[in-house]
Amino acid sequence: MHVNVADQPAFGEAIATRLAELAALSDEPGRLTRLYLGPAHRRATDLVAYWMREAGMSVRIDPLASVVGRYEARDGGGKTLLIGSHIDSVRNAGRFDGPLGVVTAIDVVKAAFKSGKRFPFAIEVIAFGDEEGVRFASTLSGSRALAGTFDEKALDELDGNTISRREALTAFGCDPRHVAAEKREPERTIGYVEVHIEQGPVLEQQGLPLGIVTAIDGVTRGIVDVEGIAGHAGTVPMAMRHDALTAAAEMVLAVEQRARAQPNLVATIGKLDVPRSAPNTIPGRVRFTLDIRSPVDAERTQAVEDIKAVIATVARRRGVLQRFTPGHQAPAAFCDERLSAQLAAAAEACGATPKRMPSGAGHDAMAFYKIIPFAMLFVRCRGGISHNPDEFASAADIDLAAHALANFLDRIAA
Amino acid sequence: MHVNVADQPAFGEAIATRLAELAALSDEPGRLTRLYLGPAHRRATDLVAYWMREAGMSVRIDPLASVVGRYEARDGGGKTLLIGSHIDSVRNAGRFDGPLGVVTAIDVVKAAFKSGKRFPFAIEVIAFGDEEGVRFASTLSGSRALAGTFDEKALDELDGNTISRREALTAFGCDPRHVAAEKREPERTIGYVEVHIEQGPVLEQQGLPLGIVTAIDGVTRGIVDVEGIAGHAGTVPMAMRHDALTAAAEMVLAVEQRARAQPNLVATIGKLDVPRSAPNTIPGRVRFTLDIRSPVDAERTQAVEDIKAVIATVARRRGVLQRFTPGHQAPAAFCDERLSAQLAAAAEACGATPKRMPSGAGHDAMAFYKIIPFAMLFVRCRGGISHNPDEFASAADIDLAAHALANFLDRIAA
Repeated sequence: MHVNVADQPAFGEAIATRLAELAALSDEPGRLTRLYLGPAHRRATDLVAYWMREAGMSVRIDPLASVVGRYEARDGGGKTLLIGSHIDSVRNAGRFDGPLGVVTAIDVVKAAFKSGKRFPFAIEVIAFGDEEGVRFASTLSGSRALAGTFDEKALDELDGNTISRREALTAFGCDPRHVAAEKREPERTIGYVEVHIEQGPVLEQQGLPLGIVTAIDGVTRGIVDVEGIAGHAGTVPMAMRHDALTAAAEMVLAVEQRARAQPNLVATIGKLDVPRSAPNTIPGRVRFTLDIRSPVDAERTQAVEDIKAVIATVARRRGVLQRFTPGHQAPAAFCDERLSAQLAAAAEACGATPKRMPSGAGHDAMAFYKIIPFAMLFVRCRGGISHNPDEFASAADIDLAAHALANFLDRIAA
Repeated sequence: MHVNVADQPAFGEAIATRLAELAALSDEPGRLTRLYLGPAHRRATDLVAYWMREAGMSVRIDPLASVVGRYEARDGGGKTLLIGSHIDSVRNAGRFDGPLGVVTAIDVVKAAFKSGKRFPFAIEVIAFGDEEGVRFASTLSGSRALAGTFDEKALDELDGNTISRREALTAFGCDPRHVAAEKREPERTIGYVEVHIEQGPVLEQQGLPLGIVTAIDGVTRGIVDVEGIAGHAGTVPMAMRHDALTAAAEMVLAVEQRARAQPNLVATIGKLDVPRSAPNTIPGRVRFTLDIRSPVDAERTQAVEDIKAVIATVARRRGVLQRFTPGHQAPAAFCDERLSAQLAAAAEACGATPKRMPSGAGHDAMAFYKIIPFAMLFVRCRGGISHNPDEFASAADIDLAAHALANFLDRIAA
């Protein structure tokens, strides 16, 4: 199958323009911060709904504030394909993480609509609002509602201003009592597809514009507390010290070394604090976070065990105490082979050689694991930079992704 | 020479009682904090002055708020011996660091006074108030005034409430315009002697109650900034990271390793900060402090150069940037051989086997280096703990130190 891209609409620049319009909607002046159910999310919801209507979709805001645009099937019946991503952001965010997938889906549907094209299935484009998890303790509520796994206890979670999720939803104009009705019937759902920037440097380093996600990494988080003996920096000989920081430094390097030994596994100490520290005091306490991810659950859990063991060994040898407190854990979520193969074929038809790769970042897609098949298309991201105003994907790469998505729809329809 | 301690006054319990009285004078309820020229320092000054008068001394508060008690010589003339320490404290301090030396000196003079004993030299017992350096940028102002090296620019230093040292002194009742008159003539001064808790674990570990200080360590301080590349903890493969924290961890261990290779040298990373850190973000920046001390200046400067070199090597290999910003530097200050030998002989006469040892902590004594000969007597400190409410020296050890000081006075007089 050969696709002449020149015959197709030019998606890239139009999508980039819309991403700039969305980026102007922020809760903070001078930088992009769009938290779930905040004022900027409200305005983004309105703008996305407008774009969806313009693209021939009927639009509604669901009980968890996801914007759902429905493009009906050729014959009004049949199954539904879900395409989505999110429009909330971290603080001081970039403009691509989330909105890229939403706008690309809208513009691809719009092109079909403008040319009078319908598919033998309905398409629902969904702009989720709760992916980054900045405001409330739990996250992915919008996608979990569609998967039927939303836990109503999350409605009682409080944000930093002690406003509950339920109150915030009500103020937004939503009625969270009707969440259950949002569950999509798996037998009537073809799958869920998400376009997203990679948020890492792998595609750029390999000179490839697109990637096909194989799995979303499983993750183990935890906190390690190290307790040594504080002392005067001048008066305690090196051999008599039980320095919590030098012990922690050895643990940090051991974690790095273990992670390097396993392809596709990553381990990060993101925070490390030395409480009550002073330049002339030997640190008595250190606390650091651990974040370990892998697309292979058994490799992750083995790495976690090895890391716990080496931390204990370092502590014992140095005469300090250590405690590992487990945090969030999630298994790897595998993408659907068939959908992924069609997405890859679509990308190849547009001239790309997509890289099969795991996603180290979490996405709404993973809420559908084992319930509705899903696939993800990654777009190259400059410098691997994300969650930062410097986040960037080129209009050319976005154009290629949009064409691949359009081609994918044709393949599903075939 | 044999001294029958049973014939001598029992210093230990009396001194411990006075230390408890002084410890009740604090700027903060429930814990001991006595900052230079603060309200508790004012009350401590009054109490110490009272004790000095009770011990037969004439008392005055000098222009930098040092309490100076003078016990005249037998014939009213001759030279003067200075004995002192400090009565200011760190925040949440112990009661021994500083006051032990002041109270021991007062009680030894008091015992002489009570028995009608005079020496062929005058004794000045001095309670300095500015040793810990908590309130203003510079420190040791009181002892520097006596050495004639006080820099009047320090009068313009501001505390955290933008009160200048000059204003604080004036409010305390002092007239800092007369600092120059406090310079002691070296040719009329026998020396300066200070009794102080060790603030480290060496004497305890060796089972010895007393130590004779050989030198106060020279010190080099500095700050190291490490700049890597921040990134998403899930999306950047281990091999593509430029993690500022793992780089810093390797530097921390290299500093420790270098320090361990040199007897009597210590190196400490007391503070380490990861700014803007998050559990799911690869650290892009780390800043840590360096504090390197040794009684041998050449060994210290060589260690500093080696440490700077290994930090640069680690940074280069890991593809991160590093910058070393030098901070405070001070050369080692050697104790006077003759005074130290007499102090050691006095301790031995009281049954102790004093350990010759460097002091890793700074003291007022070092202000006299190369100007007035000085010697220091260390007292064993439980667990090596200092700058902490758990700081403790036993009444028995204090008693031995006081007897050694009394014996030392007799030796100087002989």
